[in-house]
Amino acid sequence: MKSTFGKNLTVSLFGESHGTAIGVVIDGLQAGLQLDLDGISHRLAQRRAVGAISTARQEPDEIQIVSGFFNGRTTGTPLCLLIANTSTRSRDYERTKNLLRPGHADYTAFMKYQGWQDYRGGGHFSGRLTAPLVAAGEICRQILAGHGILIGSHLAECAAIPDAYLPQDPAELLAAMRRLNDLDFAVLDAAQGEKMQQAILNARADGDSVGGIIETAVCGMPAGIGEPFFNSLESVLAHLLFSVPAVKGVEFGAGFALAQLRGSQANDPLRIAADGHIYTTSNNNGGINGGISNGMPIIFRVAVKPTPSIYQAQQTVDFAARENAELTIQGRHDPAIVHRARVVIDSVTAIGLVDLFCEAYGTNWQTSDGEEY
Amino acid sequence: MKSTFGKNLTVSLFGESHGTAIGVVIDGLQAGLQLDLDGISHRLAQRRAVGAISTARQEPDEIQIVSGFFNGRTTGTPLCLLIANTSTRSRDYERTKNLLRPGHADYTAFMKYQGWQDYRGGGHFSGRLTAPLVAAGEICRQILAGHGILIGSHLAECAAIPDAYLPQDPAELLAAMRRLNDLDFAVLDAAQGEKMQQAILNARADGDSVGGIIETAVCGMPAGIGEPFFNSLESVLAHLLFSVPAVKGVEFGAGFALAQLRGSQANDPLRIAADGHIYTTSNNNGGINGGISNGMPIIFRVAVKPTPSIYQAQQTVDFAARENAELTIQGRHDPAIVHRARVVIDSVTAIGLVDLFCEAYGTNWQTSDGEEY
Amino acid sequence: MKSTFGKNLTVSLFGESHGTAIGVVIDGLQAGLQLDLDGISHRLAQRRAVGAISTARQEPDEIQIVSGFFNGRTTGTPLCLLIANTSTRSRDYERTKNLLRPGHADYTAFMKYQGWQDYRGGGHFSGRLTAPLVAAGEICRQILAGHGILIGSHLAECAAIPDAYLPQDPAELLAAMRRLNDLDFAVLDAAQGEKMQQAILNARADGDSVGGIIETAVCGMPAGIGEPFFNSLESVLAHLLFSVPAVKGVEFGAGFALAQLRGSQANDPLRIAADGHIYTTSNNNGGINGGISNGMPIIFRVAVKPTPSIYQAQQTVDFAARENAELTIQGRHDPAIVHRARVVIDSVTAIGLVDLFCEAYGTNWQTSDGEEY
Amino acid sequence: MKSTFGKNLTVSLFGESHGTAIGVVIDGLQAGLQLDLDGISHRLAQRRAVGAISTARQEPDEIQIVSGFFNGRTTGTPLCLLIANTSTRSRDYERTKNLLRPGHADYTAFMKYQGWQDYRGGGHFSGRLTAPLVAAGEICRQILAGHGILIGSHLAECAAIPDAYLPQDPAELLAAMRRLNDLDFAVLDAAQGEKMQQAILNARADGDSVGGIIETAVCGMPAGIGEPFFNSLESVLAHLLFSVPAVKGVEFGAGFALAQLRGSQANDPLRIAADGHIYTTSNNNGGINGGISNGMPIIFRVAVKPTPSIYQAQQTVDFAARENAELTIQGRHDPAIVHRARVVIDSVTAIGLVDLFCEAYGTNWQTSDGEEY
Repeated sequence: MKSTFGKNLTVSLFGESHGTAIGVVIDGLQAGLQLDLDGISHRLAQRRAVGAISTARQEPDEIQIVSGFFNGRTTGTPLCLLIANTSTRSRDYERTKNLLRPGHADYTAFMKYQGWQDYRGGGHFSGRLTAPLVAAGEICRQILAGHGILIGSHLAECAAIPDAYLPQDPAELLAAMRRLNDLDFAVLDAAQGEKMQQAILNARADGDSVGGIIETAVCGMPAGIGEPFFNSLESVLAHLLFSVPAVKGVEFGAGFALAQLRGSQANDPLRIAADGHIYTTSNNNGGINGGISNGMPIIFRVAVKPTPSIYQAQQTVDFAARENAELTIQGRHDPAIVHRARVVIDSVTAIGLVDLFCEAYGTNWQTSDGEEY
Repeated sequence: MKSTFGKNLTVSLFGESHGTAIGVVIDGLQAGLQLDLDGISHRLAQRRAVGAISTARQEPDEIQIVSGFFNGRTTGTPLCLLIANTSTRSRDYERTKNLLRPGHADYTAFMKYQGWQDYRGGGHFSGRLTAPLVAAGEICRQILAGHGILIGSHLAECAAIPDAYLPQDPAELLAAMRRLNDLDFAVLDAAQGEKMQQAILNARADGDSVGGIIETAVCGMPAGIGEPFFNSLESVLAHLLFSVPAVKGVEFGAGFALAQLRGSQANDPLRIAADGHIYTTSNNNGGINGGISNGMPIIFRVAVKPTPSIYQAQQTVDFAARENAELTIQGRHDPAIVHRARVVIDSVTAIGLVDLFCEAYGTNWQTSDGEEY
Repeated sequence: MKSTFGKNLTVSLFGESHGTAIGVVIDGLQAGLQLDLDGISHRLAQRRAVGAISTARQEPDEIQIVSGFFNGRTTGTPLCLLIANTSTRSRDYERTKNLLRPGHADYTAFMKYQGWQDYRGGGHFSGRLTAPLVAAGEICRQILAGHGILIGSHLAECAAIPDAYLPQDPAELLAAMRRLNDLDFAVLDAAQGEKMQQAILNARADGDSVGGIIETAVCGMPAGIGEPFFNSLESVLAHLLFSVPAVKGVEFGAGFALAQLRGSQANDPLRIAADGHIYTTSNNNGGINGGISNGMPIIFRVAVKPTPSIYQAQQTVDFAARENAELTIQGRHDPAIVHRARVVIDSVTAIGLVDLFCEAYGTNWQTSDGEEY
Repeated sequence: MKSTFGKNLTVSLFGESHGTAIGVVIDGLQAGLQLDLDGISHRLAQRRAVGAISTARQEPDEIQIVSGFFNGRTTGTPLCLLIANTSTRSRDYERTKNLLRPGHADYTAFMKYQGWQDYRGGGHFSGRLTAPLVAAGEICRQILAGHGILIGSHLAECAAIPDAYLPQDPAELLAAMRRLNDLDFAVLDAAQGEKMQQAILNARADGDSVGGIIETAVCGMPAGIGEPFFNSLESVLAHLLFSVPAVKGVEFGAGFALAQLRGSQANDPLRIAADGHIYTTSNNNGGINGGISNGMPIIFRVAVKPTPSIYQAQQTVDFAARENAELTIQGRHDPAIVHRARVVIDSVTAIGLVDLFCEAYGTNWQTSDGEEY
């Protein structure tokens, strides 16, 4: 397992930022799934750069399905999907290829791959690799939708500007998630979103960048999914979330705030409804106890660091000359990626959930026949 | 993968809180390792209950090695290790077995296992299972020590009372970790530690509990370990950290605080030392870029929620009667587990690192011949 | 994966021939299975030495379930099972520990483990490790029986003496398998079985040993189980079969004989029955096409080499002295193991099938509620 | 694991016989390997159809490397390789798509994939998928060659016509393997090869097909590779060998013949050479004891059934009409595949060995710097 994830649904990412194409092989899809290809394109569009708050590199991200899809349905054998790289300007990287970009994987890749890595645009470490990840994730989201499970996210914070809180009520939460999924800049409070975008533009004007926090909810999650200990729901989701470039923190439910609560405050009281379903009156545990879903919405937050590519002069090292140097990055870069990363967060969440559902119920559990949210 | 972790070094946990024994099978140890069994016992002692700030259940935690160890050395074939349960009072659980304990895995285990789980003391979900995990982890810590790598932790916060900051300087950090590893209550500032322990006693007096934050450092970590994307160092460590009961948040380096920084602040400048080694002048990325170690100390923080077992009356549901109920927990419980969990955090960190080192260098990389810290 | 197998049902073997105990951890059993412990004991008895045709080492093989079993049912969490070693005579091995036994794993273990392996009785490589494997396999056989699937074997050949052929008719085959499962020396033709046993005694009288061929049938197997390419039914079963000590050949259906047939002879014609089920009129493919079951009985044959422990003088090397030497093995050994191995073959077959069924249908597919054969 | 294999070196196959392309992702290659692309093309040419003894479908099999290869070296990140399908005549399959071809995976695929599989030319089950497998295998063969390990095979038997025996002497065996690797029709005795080819042509003239036995040797294999029990060298190789379409039997060393030997004949006597290396004077165990290599050549034989596609009328079932039917296959087919399969057998052997070497020595063990045979 390096760029390959999953036990029951195996996802293998490949490609580099400036290669001919990037892509993914998904092994373990049930036969007969009707994929909504427009839905995949829509999610890829949401991941793409939009306007001045994002990079000027424009990629159409057209997907080419090489295998595993026949007469409009999955075949049950591996689905391979390619996305061409069309807008590469590799010369941006030639001049500075030995100058390690601070905050990037340049130095660590040099140490791991002894200089043989494709350094152009970060190579395999590029955020560009999240495009096929989103495509794979959207397929999983469609599978989950067939079971009444919806994933959505908002920018809980960007450049230190907070969004409104997620509603606590499950029905309101679901409605909010549906609205968020239609937005390109996913905030509950449009006015706060305007401030965030202005803060991104300000950072850009300064040749700088900003980060943020993405908050995600999984609605419609049944109780009983996840494994004790090593394949806890938190373990599997965190494993995937930390594989997304720039993610440096993950917390479930009240998360780090729980450390300051007492047990009497932190414990979620249990109640039974008139219809017999059991719920908790608070959700400090984020829908997960003992690593297993409890039927409440799964809630987590992810910290996304500011884009490491900035236009200011930075102290670094020339790896070839083995001496200190100063680097001023050229090229086309995002002043923030948190608003784009949100689609990626949803995607890896969906991949992890499908893998866990299949552990309990098998490959044959998958379906796309349910009514999609 | 359920209670089994690891690709190159596979760790299989088994047992329940009130069964005859708990244990672990470790498959993938190199032959010829000289295990420091006293070191394992010492770590188990640090994990155990101590005094009024912990549970009254006293377990000697004597380890019995069933296989894989011969003439004082590992054989290279699976090492199975048992720890007897000697102090079980299962009657504490019979009376209330259908009353779901808030904050625990009772309800989720009921839903996952349809009532067949061993409910006594949380069964397989009990924190007691962390004892064999600590034994496995200490073996891995000894392997890492042979390569000059030291793991240590402190209680960065308990009951909202902060400890002093970790030193930034790598040499000072290493010295601090050595001191912390000798302490039963691992704090840098003894006076703050006193306050924490008093806060735990106060919670106990109130029939309540408290949580905290554990901060961990890995010193002596070489650059180049970890894999891109799905087996990033953060992914592997977070996977294991979130498998530890009560952990609800994990952040690397500056973590969530990075979300409010600009790139120019967050990026760690790179410099080359006179001896040719490359380092960063800050460590906001916690020693990891692109999922791969950069040679700086690996730093992360883990949020531990307050112990869910409290002595106050709590709202819950009677699962058998399917009606609302009130629960007042009896038995012997910890008013805090964060001070005990710190050894567990070190342990899973060691397991994850050995697995990743073996991915790069093979089983044969392991050795215990180095000088231990 | 070393002594650990399985993706959905993970089996971890541990122990050595002369350690205190051997055992197995089974992770991935569904909660609520009623295990027939007498059935496990019965299968262990069939695996054990019987009379002059087997070793004089007598082990009671009493199983101790350490975890995962509560109130007569599986809990759904890892089941650990121990079998004590009670009849070890380690001194048999001390004198000759540097004399590599031909046909055994002594030399290869020395090379792999650099001398740190437990050499007594073959250590972890001992056929004794097949006892916990049989226990794990019998649990899987009980699960399969709950779905109407029966596994059985006969000694198709021992010491070059053939048994009668398996019946072709599925109903007759099933009846034959039921009879064979009750026998300690599993042959269809009792007279041929007598000759085989006499041949074993003759070999014993000569201080020598014999081998044989085990033929196995899986009855009641539904069509559609197995995966294309790397997890073909043949791949998974052969993987497990070749992990059984002394197995040197595996063939499915007509096997090696297919190499001499023409396609017109080898292809199994397809027909549809009055009740709508599809079958083949011959079974040269052994119930498997393209790696996937076709609903016909799965048939395979396994070659078991003669026991390498013989009492005649043999040429070998003294590994410590690094010189040629002669070895005459002492101790208690089997003049044949093929009649005992048959239970092991059934067991690993069951383990592999349950793992593949769970891949398609999930852990929740398991049951022990069906009527057992 | 379905169409994905390997723990340290992961190989993911994808594609269908009549799709736009087939391919493979190889994850776990060391950075800096110089691949011999002409060598890959040469092996693909040997796998391809040649003359009247093979199918008339002619595919150029040009490889397109999409990722993981930069400036003539591997980057260490996933290598994706595509091979276009250019000569598809899908109409051959439309007319008879509901007529299950005897001996093929048609019925089992219908049962597994509920009719959604790509049925054209066998879809993902096609032998065409062995082309990317050969490409991946040849990369592994180049890695092994850098360590002085050579794999080669001959047609030990085709249409019941035997080839000469492999030489026993390791040096002669190595020389023979080098010669065989240069041949398109790999036999030691050219006259016997002529007879085999004539027998294939005779079968073709009859609208029929033939099978055969491939015998493979691995020369230069060091002792100590393989794992006890479940990842024995035999288990890993057999797992891969049985994943090759049409393989129905695998035996190591003397294989099934061992069943008729006595221990005194079967055991390979051990001797030490003047230079201190230990060897066996016979090789009945095929270079493997206890699942671990013993330094002798690894020898195994693989039974390949006759091509199931024949031009004679066959009894079958119309799956849509659910009634008996007769099928006369059209299209372009091989009267034998055993001569082509030999390259595939070498390839999967190489993949399995590299995976096992990396388990012991890590990804970093790989190198291509050695002199190739």
